Amino acid sequence: MKESIKKLEQLGEKVLKDVEKGENPNLDIPLRTLSNVKYDKKTGMLTIGDKSAKRYFFNVAHAKKFMQTMMVAAFTKELLEEGIHTSLRDAFYALKRTFPNSNENTFDEQSESDPIIVDIEVALDILREQLHLSADVRGRVVGDVVIEDRGDSVDWSKLGSGGWSMPSNVEEIKFKKVKADFILVIEKNAAFERLHEDKFWQKHKCILLTTQGQAARGVRRVIQRLSSEFKLPVYVLTDIDSYGLYIYSVIKRGSISLSHVSDRLGTPNAKFLGLTMDDIEKYGLQKFTIKAEDTDIKRAQELMNYEWFKSPDWQRQLKMLMQKKIKAELEALSGRGLKFMTETYLPEKLKKKEFLD
Amino acid sequence: MKESIKKLEQLGEKVLKDVEKGENPNLDIPLRTLSNVKYDKKTGMLTIGDKSAKRYFFNVAHAKKFMQTMMVAAFTKELLEEGIHTSLRDAFYALKRTFPNSNENTFDEQSESDPIIVDIEVALDILREQLHLSADVRGRVVGDVVIEDRGDSVDWSKLGSGGWSMPSNVEEIKFKKVKADFILVIEKNAAFERLHEDKFWQKHKCILLTTQGQAARGVRRVIQRLSSEFKLPVYVLTDIDSYGLYIYSVIKRGSISLSHVSDRLGTPNAKFLGLTMDDIEKYGLQKFTIKAEDTDIKRAQELMNYEWFKSPDWQRQLKMLMQKKIKAELEALSGRGLKFMTETYLPEKLKKKEFLD
Repeated sequence: MKESIKKLEQLGEKVLKDVEKGENPNLDIPLRTLSNVKYDKKTGMLTIGDKSAKRYFFNVAHAKKFMQTMMVAAFTKELLEEGIHTSLRDAFYALKRTFPNSNENTFDEQSESDPIIVDIEVALDILREQLHLSADVRGRVVGDVVIEDRGDSVDWSKLGSGGWSMPSNVEEIKFKKVKADFILVIEKNAAFERLHEDKFWQKHKCILLTTQGQAARGVRRVIQRLSSEFKLPVYVLTDIDSYGLYIYSVIKRGSISLSHVSDRLGTPNAKFLGLTMDDIEKYGLQKFTIKAEDTDIKRAQELMNYEWFKSPDWQRQLKMLMQKKIKAELEALSGRGLKFMTETYLPEKLKKKEFLD
Repeated sequence: MKESIKKLEQLGEKVLKDVEKGENPNLDIPLRTLSNVKYDKKTGMLTIGDKSAKRYFFNVAHAKKFMQTMMVAAFTKELLEEGIHTSLRDAFYALKRTFPNSNENTFDEQSESDPIIVDIEVALDILREQLHLSADVRGRVVGDVVIEDRGDSVDWSKLGSGGWSMPSNVEEIKFKKVKADFILVIEKNAAFERLHEDKFWQKHKCILLTTQGQAARGVRRVIQRLSSEFKLPVYVLTDIDSYGLYIYSVIKRGSISLSHVSDRLGTPNAKFLGLTMDDIEKYGLQKFTIKAEDTDIKRAQELMNYEWFKSPDWQRQLKMLMQKKIKAELEALSGRGLKFMTETYLPEKLKKKEFLD
């Protein structure tokens, strides 16, 4: 928190110096355009390039954005100093006002304040959560883990059927006890609940986590922190369709729109556990597949072109999806019985280490 | 659980008796059409009428559905006997198979199995959750409450910033300690997080719960159970727009599509705390309103016609919405400062008991 405040102060001081020197006050904002996002082979993650643009105060095209950037920076500094967290939407309302004797607003729509917040995130190389701005919440977790959060000691192994609800901001959480051999990340809550009920995490000594769809930032950060702080392998279990593969890709490589924080939200050692196109044959799921839509085929083609899906194994999977024009959901495993996933599918895959990288 | 199994067995025995008597085996399924849903003034909830339809085995139009009903009934009996819970989608896959030497499937789409599950729910007057079929999960809660769930003792006051993640099935949860004067139900997670951070539930001795949008069945059941088992008043805080009012309405009156379980999912003593159209003036939120869309206006007109929105107070609110053509979100309160909701708005409304019923 102190570091965030310091960075915000430095931003302010820089502008102040410009004024004192009689220069046009300006800020340097790294570009978040597609052309400035690269796949970094060394880290295995999407990363932002070094192109940036200057934002000037005395420039008709920049002046309003400059003012907005200063407002957001001042606002987040207040949040930090007062120890308050809030959402992007609340921040918009809190910052929205009308200039006296005019019809001009500081911000008209949230679509104006959101990118400014990311600008500051990128410019200061700081997570939005560290500025006390919360993102969406989704995701739950169980396992033999004890954390400390806001003074409470929370035991993830003793939360009944519900599990621990992951908050948007996990920066200040301390891991006090982590007893697990790996992290199993599951796209869907239904599969999570089945595995939880079957005590899968106890038998296989793992942390069981569901993203409930695309992983929210808080969830990605928890996976990244657990994996890097405790050297835990991460296995991702999703549907075999373009959406599922993208969930996996974002957890592992980071996302294009958030490439500037891949190092904190991405987990490059994450591996894909399933479902695979091969699983459909191997586990007799043919009757439980779904016809792939045109969008699935198109998206699979796009994935094939991504540098980080270029391994022969991935190319083979994607080609199979496109040729057979089918996809399959995690629930398809229930076609083989409700305990099939817990007792057969997962133990076999884990034992044989059948992962895609 | 024993009661559910007994009801399922009675269903089977009834059909068996029909066979033994040489009659056409049949089931009596209450109708879920709009014409068979009524608002019951006495209970203050939507309720299903007494029209029903017979489903026959020897009837070309009924035979497949009859078979499907038997399959689902047998499947849920297995779930109960084996102590397994699963989702509607998994149930579909588990029940889907192809008849030997044919292309005919038991179920082709989940849209076939879902209504059959509701048929059984209605026919046996039993909650789907009591058949071990889970619904969507959403919603989190904090408060001075200790529950017992699957052998774990979970203290809702000691879960850090995340709160307890409400599972889809709360039938088997035991409330061991409930220290609260009321339940505050909040539509949006952002407002929930702000209030939680400000320790609102400690200062005002309440249970703080967010539905995160339309309340999932599990959440509605938790509200209903806490309210009825511990005589707790329920206050609902939503945006003032057609969606927010509908969330409130469903919590209080039940919903049309689930009118057969209103007595277990509805909480008729729930009261609407805000936002109201009056609040916009009273709390100076004019600058933070949003233009109401045509759909909002149309929906407000529909609400005006509902019997349970006929009180002069509600008619006035709805008229104001339609005339001023504006709506407001909970986040609008942040326009007055991030602690305005915690320190001014809610304490004032609660003190003056400014509720709509």
